[in-house]
Amino acid sequence: MSATLQFQDWIAAHSGRTESALDRLLDSAQTTPHRLHEAMRYAAQGGGKRIRPLLVYAAGQLGDGKENTEALDAAAVAIECIHAYSLVHDDLPCMDDDDLRRGRPTVHKAFDEATALLVGDALQTRAFEILANANGDANSKLRMISALAAASGSRGMAGGQAIDLESIGKKLDLSGLQQMHAMKTGALLACAVELGGIAANLNASQLEQLQKYAKALGLAFQIVDDVLDATADSQTLGKTAGKDAANDKPTYVTLMGLDYAQKQAKELQETAISSLDGFGEKAQALKDLALLVVNRAK
Amino acid sequence: MSATLQFQDWIAAHSGRTESALDRLLDSAQTTPHRLHEAMRYAAQGGGKRIRPLLVYAAGQLGDGKENTEALDAAAVAIECIHAYSLVHDDLPCMDDDDLRRGRPTVHKAFDEATALLVGDALQTRAFEILANANGDANSKLRMISALAAASGSRGMAGGQAIDLESIGKKLDLSGLQQMHAMKTGALLACAVELGGIAANLNASQLEQLQKYAKALGLAFQIVDDVLDATADSQTLGKTAGKDAANDKPTYVTLMGLDYAQKQAKELQETAISSLDGFGEKAQALKDLALLVVNRAK
Repeated sequence: MSATLQFQDWIAAHSGRTESALDRLLDSAQTTPHRLHEAMRYAAQGGGKRIRPLLVYAAGQLGDGKENTEALDAAAVAIECIHAYSLVHDDLPCMDDDDLRRGRPTVHKAFDEATALLVGDALQTRAFEILANANGDANSKLRMISALAAASGSRGMAGGQAIDLESIGKKLDLSGLQQMHAMKTGALLACAVELGGIAANLNASQLEQLQKYAKALGLAFQIVDDVLDATADSQTLGKTAGKDAANDKPTYVTLMGLDYAQKQAKELQETAISSLDGFGEKAQALKDLALLVVNRAK
Repeated sequence: MSATLQFQDWIAAHSGRTESALDRLLDSAQTTPHRLHEAMRYAAQGGGKRIRPLLVYAAGQLGDGKENTEALDAAAVAIECIHAYSLVHDDLPCMDDDDLRRGRPTVHKAFDEATALLVGDALQTRAFEILANANGDANSKLRMISALAAASGSRGMAGGQAIDLESIGKKLDLSGLQQMHAMKTGALLACAVELGGIAANLNASQLEQLQKYAKALGLAFQIVDDVLDATADSQTLGKTAGKDAANDKPTYVTLMGLDYAQKQAKELQETAISSLDGFGEKAQALKDLALLVVNRAK
């Protein structure tokens, strides 16, 4: 089987594992209050690329084969709950005011604004609850909870969102833009890899190598996001395209130009891949994910 | 010194301890992004009765005197961060649309809606981060995180809020009202006592006794809230009074009548206090807190 086909199988298997873990670890829509739980599932189970869970599972393969599979599932679902909560809140009228997400009405359109607010709140809570309740070593779980909180809170994702809000009309320069994205998107992508590494019992120096991969990947991810926002249409993206330009927001494309942005993304992809050299063949899925992130069409 | 004076000293000492722990454990407003961290402090440090932290500290006294003081501070701040986040989000225009909280402009009035959304999100994250990062026994910390998540998520506080939203115009009956408040307010009050009990290394049967206290206290708390909403003015409350009647929401007062509601609150106060008999003098602060909750004027 060719390497590409093997990776397609890997993706299919681990996307399936993600969906199944989400289904198992989210409350059923039969749980009171029904409408809230239905809306939480709508938000978290509406497809999407599942890049963060895939990164968790891929990093989870780097150890001695004795990774804690239940902790990996918990980490994959927890990080996807955090990502889903951030999308639900970002889409609200007081933020990006978006009607379309993953090709479907956003949560506040399909339900209502107050429900969308609570859905985001409760998905965040559930993320930490799932990690705390998973089987496995207590100290590892606390490290995971601490890492997820640091990556998603006011010094991570939520903080990056706050900087993004402040930047409208202010014209961030390239280093300001990088800091904003490192917090808003990069921190959670890096956290996905870290959680997988913790579940795989990697040592500190191995986790450090992983962070180099994650940092380059996170930056590449955002550059590609900006390229797609400038070049793809809404139907392909499953969300409103061209919003950055419409909102006069600085992007890698407006600051670097399209050609240079695409060249940078490729270079970062190579940096990400080469930083995994020490892990040998076990790192193949992480390397393939870097290719996938940079070459994606949506 | 009279018992009342001793309790006043206790309250002063532990309110001070709460403020000092909040100041220490929240990010400084000098941390990037400044405005978000300033708004988080505005939301969490704007006064309030601090009933949940006081319950944490009071329950923390029930053990063998070897309670983990750092874990108690972490629990007190974490639960207050969860409470503060819920107030910030409840006050948003898509929820209760309130301009006044604790006698000051609500966060979305003092800052803006998008910032208020992020403040609530990030205060929730910080709550779990603080518990995960505290010193102390890993399993105890995981139990605390799990309890706080259960009490505040979709089967607790956020779920109660969702039921409350659905109940407008629907006329909940008394048992529906009790279920809603048990989730919306009671779960977090009970959790405060549980976190203190965990930090004090109480055994399962002691924690069960504490839950009886907490259940009665939580119900009494909400009945008194409804009585005050119906009888006090906005200046005394520091928030908009009479909102329930204006919104045609069912309350204990509308369902039971004012006199019976007040009588019920007193009975629950007695139930709460008598459920602590097995703890002897160590439970004095918890007993005094039950009196305080029922006899408060705001």
